[in-house]
Amino acid sequence: MHSHVHLVIVFTFPTKSLNKSRLRGEAQNAGEEYTKLLQLLESSGLKAVGKAGRRYGEIIVLVHSPLVKLNQLARLEQCSDFRQGVLAAVSSLTKPQINLPPSHRIRLLYDYLTNPTSAGGLGISPGISLWKRVVGIYPLHDPEFDKTWVRSLAKGSPTLNQLDSAKDNYGEEVGLYFAFLATYTKSLTPIAVFGTTFHFLGERYSPFYSIVIVLWATFFAEYWAVYERKLAIRWGSYGSSGLYKLSKNQTTETRVSRRWIEDFDKLSRLGISVAVLLGFMGILVVITVIVFVLEAFLALLYKGPGSQLAPVIPVIIFTASAPTVLGIYRFIAIRSTDFERNDTSTHIYSLTIKRFILSTIVSYFGIALSAFIYMPFGQEVLGLLHLQLSAFDLMGMTGSLVGEEEELLWEHDLFKASTKLNNTRLQTQMFAFLVTAQLANAFQELGMPYVIRWLQSRINPPAKMKRPGNRLTTQEENLLDRVKEEVSTRLDYDIFDDYCEMITQFGYIAVWSSIWPLAPGESMACLNNWLEGPSDAFKLITHLRKPIPVRVESIGAWLDCIRWIAWAAAVVNTVLVCLYHPDFVHIGMASYKEADFKTCLLIALTASHAFLVVRYVVRIVVDKMYWQHSEEKERLDRTGQKLRGSFLDTFTRSAVHVTRGEETQGDFWTLDEGLDEILRGSKED
Amino acid sequence: MHSHVHLVIVFTFPTKSLNKSRLRGEAQNAGEEYTKLLQLLESSGLKAVGKAGRRYGEIIVLVHSPLVKLNQLARLEQCSDFRQGVLAAVSSLTKPQINLPPSHRIRLLYDYLTNPTSAGGLGISPGISLWKRVVGIYPLHDPEFDKTWVRSLAKGSPTLNQLDSAKDNYGEEVGLYFAFLATYTKSLTPIAVFGTTFHFLGERYSPFYSIVIVLWATFFAEYWAVYERKLAIRWGSYGSSGLYKLSKNQTTETRVSRRWIEDFDKLSRLGISVAVLLGFMGILVVITVIVFVLEAFLALLYKGPGSQLAPVIPVIIFTASAPTVLGIYRFIAIRSTDFERNDTSTHIYSLTIKRFILSTIVSYFGIALSAFIYMPFGQEVLGLLHLQLSAFDLMGMTGSLVGEEEELLWEHDLFKASTKLNNTRLQTQMFAFLVTAQLANAFQELGMPYVIRWLQSRINPPAKMKRPGNRLTTQEENLLDRVKEEVSTRLDYDIFDDYCEMITQFGYIAVWSSIWPLAPGESMACLNNWLEGPSDAFKLITHLRKPIPVRVESIGAWLDCIRWIAWAAAVVNTVLVCLYHPDFVHIGMASYKEADFKTCLLIALTASHAFLVVRYVVRIVVDKMYWQHSEEKERLDRTGQKLRGSFLDTFTRSAVHVTRGEETQGDFWTLDEGLDEILRGSKED
Repeated sequence: MHSHVHLVIVFTFPTKSLNKSRLRGEAQNAGEEYTKLLQLLESSGLKAVGKAGRRYGEIIVLVHSPLVKLNQLARLEQCSDFRQGVLAAVSSLTKPQINLPPSHRIRLLYDYLTNPTSAGGLGISPGISLWKRVVGIYPLHDPEFDKTWVRSLAKGSPTLNQLDSAKDNYGEEVGLYFAFLATYTKSLTPIAVFGTTFHFLGERYSPFYSIVIVLWATFFAEYWAVYERKLAIRWGSYGSSGLYKLSKNQTTETRVSRRWIEDFDKLSRLGISVAVLLGFMGILVVITVIVFVLEAFLALLYKGPGSQLAPVIPVIIFTASAPTVLGIYRFIAIRSTDFERNDTSTHIYSLTIKRFILSTIVSYFGIALSAFIYMPFGQEVLGLLHLQLSAFDLMGMTGSLVGEEEELLWEHDLFKASTKLNNTRLQTQMFAFLVTAQLANAFQELGMPYVIRWLQSRINPPAKMKRPGNRLTTQEENLLDRVKEEVSTRLDYDIFDDYCEMITQFGYIAVWSSIWPLAPGESMACLNNWLEGPSDAFKLITHLRKPIPVRVESIGAWLDCIRWIAWAAAVVNTVLVCLYHPDFVHIGMASYKEADFKTCLLIALTASHAFLVVRYVVRIVVDKMYWQHSEEKERLDRTGQKLRGSFLDTFTRSAVHVTRGEETQGDFWTLDEGLDEILRGSKED
Repeated sequence: MHSHVHLVIVFTFPTKSLNKSRLRGEAQNAGEEYTKLLQLLESSGLKAVGKAGRRYGEIIVLVHSPLVKLNQLARLEQCSDFRQGVLAAVSSLTKPQINLPPSHRIRLLYDYLTNPTSAGGLGISPGISLWKRVVGIYPLHDPEFDKTWVRSLAKGSPTLNQLDSAKDNYGEEVGLYFAFLATYTKSLTPIAVFGTTFHFLGERYSPFYSIVIVLWATFFAEYWAVYERKLAIRWGSYGSSGLYKLSKNQTTETRVSRRWIEDFDKLSRLGISVAVLLGFMGILVVITVIVFVLEAFLALLYKGPGSQLAPVIPVIIFTASAPTVLGIYRFIAIRSTDFERNDTSTHIYSLTIKRFILSTIVSYFGIALSAFIYMPFGQEVLGLLHLQLSAFDLMGMTGSLVGEEEELLWEHDLFKASTKLNNTRLQTQMFAFLVTAQLANAFQELGMPYVIRWLQSRINPPAKMKRPGNRLTTQEENLLDRVKEEVSTRLDYDIFDDYCEMITQFGYIAVWSSIWPLAPGESMACLNNWLEGPSDAFKLITHLRKPIPVRVESIGAWLDCIRWIAWAAAVVNTVLVCLYHPDFVHIGMASYKEADFKTCLLIALTASHAFLVVRYVVRIVVDKMYWQHSEEKERLDRTGQKLRGSFLDTFTRSAVHVTRGEETQGDFWTLDEGLDEILRGSKED
């Protein structure tokens, strides 16, 4: 029953117009568009039926495609893939029967519906002027698969077969995320054991710990690069990133034909997009710095009422405001990236990188301020602030207070204040950031959706109308209810959030964990991650719409993020060891000399170079260990060779026309002197 | 006539054995091997005839292959290439008639003769135990082509057609060298004009000049990478580097099947090879330092007889000894690289890199010593040396001399000595190195061979023997004379020398020319390079054996050398500007403080990072400008698409078996609610 509904098209029309004649006109237009939609779908060999939605003004068109049609589409895609160089496509070409997994069916049908007519599709793209009443096209969850899937995930790290079935149901993009999660969690185990041991036995800011962590981060990045390639070969998506696809906004526009103008245009668009990003980065930096100053320094100086709680207030403000800024940027970034006019894969890449940069500032900038400004320069900044406050006093602003009361408000003894400046701040901050982040994420993933939907249902209660003459079975009724629930009340799945959470955690561990070898979650993070798989799946199943399956061969931008984090880990760890390790620390709290600053920078830059060398070596080793002799590489080679071999076989051997070389005249080619020459010696003597 | 002799096999047998019976036994063995050789060649469809060589004990076997055979070989190679993924091969596969250029014929035949029988060849590999009397297999020069070629080169920068014909006659490797030479010379012109202008108008160690030079070097490296790719597509050698070929020493050995043992074996062999390289580097460094100390510091202190000429003597010693060390290393490197057991392309890469590293020390280490040790630390070293000499005096070693005479021998006034320490040394050295190198190269290329051959002819005068019953024409006699001359008196062509000269010059300009913007040859080098093409060609034609054509798609190791030089240019130029530019120099001759040293290093490391960013940008720009919209890229894409398209056409479309989807029961798919819903609004009201 369920499998018959492949996609759901949501069709809306206005119901709240004041003018009655306009309303009637609207209804007529909507009727025309709706009829056109159904006719188009049916004339294309699809089955389509409209059902009343959850509220008036919303129609849900259920679309089903016969297998014949899907097979045709699959065949077409394979041919086009192969023409564009995806070798894997050929292996399925030779099979007469195509066994399409659900995600593949949905993707094919979705592409068919939304592709422009020029590309052989139906052109039903939500939002374009021709279909302005079509607001969305969604696939439906498969409750039976979902149930078993979450259960299997809860049992532990998913096997390759479980990843396959996730991919079969949700497409390569989601499959790859769960594969990444599993690989990351597994690779975390040894380092968690190491970190915990180190925390209890070893020292802080240990060079040895830092080296191990950086090596681990580098190894993980390179290992994943190989692993995802192997998965792509296994799933047949290898090489698919090279396929040429237009982004949504390009489909409706004519392309500029002159190259240089086009290039310049692109560059300036990119420039504007980057400027927007920089603007938001600036906002976040300013917010972070203000919060930091309020929280860190006022805690040292302020003695007034509520001085115990005072430093917490700015942190709460920050925790509330930062996600808002990120949310606003997300909204703007989608538009500014559209504005860049990239093709699809570049579009996603650009968007991901930009959003992650902002998220990075929120996650790490506070710790960076503590580590590189507050701790080394704290004395100076404190002195400066103190001076400002004293000036404030002198100007008589607090003149209304008597001397003693004033004494109580601000710490006037600078020495006393500076004793509060200490090393533990970094550890505390790490702990707070990590735990806060994980709790916030867990709530956002699992709790928040319930709240939102409860609110939604209060504002927009579903219209319960039993039609007369309704001859549907209970099963069908249930299906319809589920469809309406999924389509109308759920939000879209944004895979960015899931990746961002994991990669940010990876960053805490790789870059900052020498501060607190236990916390950066190692074991904690580990505990968190074993739950992350089932909880992400649960969230997807229960609270979000099923995403349109996307065929990808790599986690793309995220791999680059991991690599950059590994590099940052090399640099930051070096600086942290220099600044804080007892053997290396030649800077006290107040003796931060220019020369030491230079030494520190010098060592960091050297570490950056050393990292490049180490990564080169790690890359070779990983390639040797996991790729060179792998089954997947062999399969890849074999596919190519088999293909070319069979091409050679089909190639009709045209007779080689031979131009006979002219025969040489004379004795030149017959008069052999060799044997005479050899025997001459033994004869002569 | 000439074209009929495709290859010449040199067969030797001992003639100077004391024992007569042994000599007879040898002759019999030689006779057997010789007969076997001729029979093998003839049974394989080749024409072969032996002629007496220049001296007794040497037989020259002329080999000719009929066109039928060559076409067969070409067809086989194309099929094998295509199977292994060289797409270009398919375009010629579809042509019934093959038009093979001379270099292609020679390469095919040479491969056929030398490949092991397991790979379908005849297994006549010079030096292996089965053919121990076969000492070499050589192609012959084509005097007519050679004459017109040198003439056309003398007229100016070669056109694409001229490069094509060089490749047609000498193969892709040589063709690529002349293409590189032409491209490099052309790209030098603007920078020569810029440098000369700067020399006469501008300042020394200018940051502006350095930036332009580094940008130029980076641009050139990236431009060449694109240009050679385009040439490879034009010449059909694109993708050929991926072809699996065994190196000479692997053909006769069975391969170790166990992977890890093999890996470990390879790694340890590489380790030994690197150790040898390091040893030679050490020797060269020691020689350079000794020569440097003798030349630079003794010039400041020594006042004895011939003090004017004294500093020149160590330089002469260096100029004589360095090439000897390089020569010895060349000999050893070939063996140590054989020992590494790489496949062919890695073998050449490894050998080239190792030889170039040593050559780099000879070329640049002296200048580096001057720039980074002598100039900044000269005062200290001078003081130290002076102290040593004084101790020497005190110990009475020069005690036999009276005070005044001793005064005359050594400069005892340290201040007076240190006044001789000055900046011009660097300029003078640059000038000397560049001019010396260019003169030495010119002599080695054009003059030396005459000397060697004159010596050879004195030691080994050619045996002039007229055979009785010789019924050859004069033309044939001339050919034979030429063959004997080429085979017996000439040396093999070593393309390393030609590249090394040019890349070293590139290094002088990119890395060191801010010292002397005029000299690093710019205009001079330019003058030199316009002559380099014809003179290299002349050398090849007149003094060296024709090389076996090698199919390559890239200059390989040299491209990496250029890229590393561009990086070194960024770092060294920055340091030079820091150390010597008047605005930046905060170090006097004697005030070289630790802090400044750190600043300098810091800036250099920053420059290294900046370089990576700049290169990334340059790479994108060059790719956009010269590759993205190029005819060659289009051709490459088209070839692949055409190939895959025609494969799809030949593919018999198997009927798609369709499993009919079960028809749904009930009214679910027929009961449409949409239109009712839309019209409800307007009806109700």
